Amino acid sequence: MPEYRAELRVHLRTGVLDPAGEAVQASLRHLGFAAARVEVGKLLTVDLTAGSPEEAEAAVHRMAKELLVNPVLEDYVLEVHAR
Amino acid sequence: MPEYRAELRVHLRTGVLDPAGEAVQASLRHLGFAAARVEVGKLLTVDLTAGSPEEAEAAVHRMAKELLVNPVLEDYVLEVHAR
Repeated sequence: MPEYRAELRVHLRTGVLDPAGEAVQASLRHLGFAAARVEVGKLLTVDLTAGSPEEAEAAVHRMAKELLVNPVLEDYVLEVHAR
Repeated sequence: MPEYRAELRVHLRTGVLDPAGEAVQASLRHLGFAAARVEVGKLLTVDLTAGSPEEAEAAVHRMAKELLVNPVLEDYVLEVHAR
């Protein structure tokens, strides 16, 4: 079966507090960098086999729903490429 | 000054152990999903102002070097967009 690599970019939803992002922003300021905002999100890379790109995408959406993403706090963008 | 959004996709270098990725892979397997590999990386979003896209990119490369990325363990891909 063809092999695919899925990249899930997981962002915090608007309005959700991001203490990690604020800590990084404060450290950057300390080093003399001015960043208006920093967000610390997750980048999940999943290698899988599937019958087609559509099947791979559907499988990773199910993984996101069942485990990888917390829909109350996070949303995500999914990209799937053949390997 | 123009506003930019930089997205840093931080991956673990090849050969670096990724216990978080292995844990996620095991949990996926437990749920009936077959993933050949899972990697848990970081997705850093930095909003900043700069004179040009090139200046914004150069600033975020410096931030990566000085704080955001550990070059022994990680590498990264940077994308900068005007906001």
